[in-house]
Amino acid sequence: MVDLQIFNSMIIKSKINDEYYVDFIDNFKLSLDEEFSKKTSVIIIDEVVYNLFKDQINKKFNNSLIKINCSEANKTIEYSQKVIRKLIELKFRKDYDLIAIGGGITQDIVAFISSILYRGVNWKFYPTTLLGQCDSCIGSKSSINFDSYKNLLGTFKPPSQIFINNAFLYTLTESEIKSGIGEMLHYFLVDGIDIALKLSQEYDELIINRKGLDFFINKSLEIKKKIIEIDEFDMSVRHIFNYGHTFGHAIEAITNYSIPHGQAVTIGMDLANYISMKLNMLSKDNFKIMHEILKINKPKYSIDINNIDNYCSALSKDKKNKGNNLGCILSNSPGNVEKVFLKIDDNLKSMITNYFIHYGT
Amino acid sequence: MVDLQIFNSMIIKSKINDEYYVDFIDNFKLSLDEEFSKKTSVIIIDEVVYNLFKDQINKKFNNSLIKINCSEANKTIEYSQKVIRKLIELKFRKDYDLIAIGGGITQDIVAFISSILYRGVNWKFYPTTLLGQCDSCIGSKSSINFDSYKNLLGTFKPPSQIFINNAFLYTLTESEIKSGIGEMLHYFLVDGIDIALKLSQEYDELIINRKGLDFFINKSLEIKKKIIEIDEFDMSVRHIFNYGHTFGHAIEAITNYSIPHGQAVTIGMDLANYISMKLNMLSKDNFKIMHEILKINKPKYSIDINNIDNYCSALSKDKKNKGNNLGCILSNSPGNVEKVFLKIDDNLKSMITNYFIHYGT
Repeated sequence: MVDLQIFNSMIIKSKINDEYYVDFIDNFKLSLDEEFSKKTSVIIIDEVVYNLFKDQINKKFNNSLIKINCSEANKTIEYSQKVIRKLIELKFRKDYDLIAIGGGITQDIVAFISSILYRGVNWKFYPTTLLGQCDSCIGSKSSINFDSYKNLLGTFKPPSQIFINNAFLYTLTESEIKSGIGEMLHYFLVDGIDIALKLSQEYDELIINRKGLDFFINKSLEIKKKIIEIDEFDMSVRHIFNYGHTFGHAIEAITNYSIPHGQAVTIGMDLANYISMKLNMLSKDNFKIMHEILKINKPKYSIDINNIDNYCSALSKDKKNKGNNLGCILSNSPGNVEKVFLKIDDNLKSMITNYFIHYGT
Repeated sequence: MVDLQIFNSMIIKSKINDEYYVDFIDNFKLSLDEEFSKKTSVIIIDEVVYNLFKDQINKKFNNSLIKINCSEANKTIEYSQKVIRKLIELKFRKDYDLIAIGGGITQDIVAFISSILYRGVNWKFYPTTLLGQCDSCIGSKSSINFDSYKNLLGTFKPPSQIFINNAFLYTLTESEIKSGIGEMLHYFLVDGIDIALKLSQEYDELIINRKGLDFFINKSLEIKKKIIEIDEFDMSVRHIFNYGHTFGHAIEAITNYSIPHGQAVTIGMDLANYISMKLNMLSKDNFKIMHEILKINKPKYSIDINNIDNYCSALSKDKKNKGNNLGCILSNSPGNVEKVFLKIDDNLKSMITNYFIHYGT
């Protein structure tokens, strides 16, 4: 029986690559064999993913394969330079392809190397996490830590081709799935309410039967595609995707990154909605409708409500601020978000405190 | 008396910056004061240039100024990281401007930093060498050395604004002027014969009275602009600007970079033309017409004609080769160059040997 591909190839327009493609594939082994036969390539793979999938990686690729250790501590220029040295040892040339297999850190390292090696080389990507598949694989961004600064460096360099394979999702923890769902919910609520509602209804089932996630991954990428094609370099309209992120990043920072990113974004959206409601931008009904969806994906966490200054201080460090004004995305209704600059003052602090008293758990 | 600007502002279309501008300015001090008042900026300046022009740099910029040591040995990621640390100390933000003042190495370092810091920041450029003014300031390329490999890394990142000021040229050595002239001749001969001829006629005068160079700088940038707007990322037609460079680079390599770049390119063009003539692509008359122009700008040098293997070995390492085939640009006539792949064999070696016997001095 032929396993038909469910979704059409998605074409993303880019200023850097002209266009690039996302394909949902059924067979990782076959796909990798095919890509490898097309063009001289070197594979850069997360060593954890390698150990899980080594049976599906043709042994003849072993001389053209670099395993990397994808810790946050290795998302640096120094580690990228080590990988470049290995590429030179393998006699990698400008007209070869890099094939990245792994999650977000693999993507960051390979995209960064692809940006700076020989003034840019072509790369292809098999994202293996839900976050990678539903979000970061398109949009061209790479992020690299510098000294003690998280994501201070980076470039814009999309892969020429992305392959989404559901099989990878079955190797993920529940927490990694929830993190990806948080990121997807943020796309869905920027776009409207229907898909977010559908996702919340199927939530428990999706955590177990992950085949169903493909539908939502595709929707998520479709929403992102529309905006990044207009504003690839994140200068204007793409800012709407900071929805949930400004408040989420500050939660990650004050909890020492113990909360998975997409779940911090889930809390961040709920808090952004709460502030939107208090500022009379968002109706109470719409706050509640979205809150019912978001609360399903919230993690267990605790914020010291006597120390909201700490949280506000984290907010004040956001790169998108202007002076003492917090640049953030608030909601007028599902599908209608807006960039707002809020003074970081007692009024904001009081709204945030009230949110955590009522909804922070 | 108002000193009128001779040339119109040149607008360069770019995939990265949308468009950017070249302006010929009369007053460096006024221009820098004006740019600095427009937007919060940090100046990165070659320390040699700083010492020559410090009287024209407002003292109040001293807290926003980084002097760099522009040796080839510092054109590295490691040195770029040091500069980034200084930028962080100066609290440089994503919405600030970097202002680069210096030659090619300053450009490479600042363009590279601008590419990777905060996923790209805006930069402006005062090129202070003739090579920088007539050629490298437009076209978006940066080049960074890696370990023992020259220019292995790099990015595409044009400045938003370039200011050409003739005053800088009077601080250059004769050799630096000749190097710039070599690079200009390569643009002129890709385009036709008239401007190259005019330059050769005014050559001796231009070395002394450098004001006259502005006309040729403008022409050179106009020719380059037409091509880089079509092929900014050097994937196709921009290859024509490798004319003289493939053979020139190999001369630089075997002479340990003792010949100034643009003068090596001058020899490279003459050799490319000689090979074109021997392959019956270029008429003897046209070879001679161009040879008479090029010979004026050739440096004194000596190549061991008993060791042309050494030269061919340098050619064989060119990044643009395909297998054992040398990818180079040959000439059909002035204004008509063509990409050709030549086998690096005894026939090529014999042509090169004959060239150096007859014309190598």
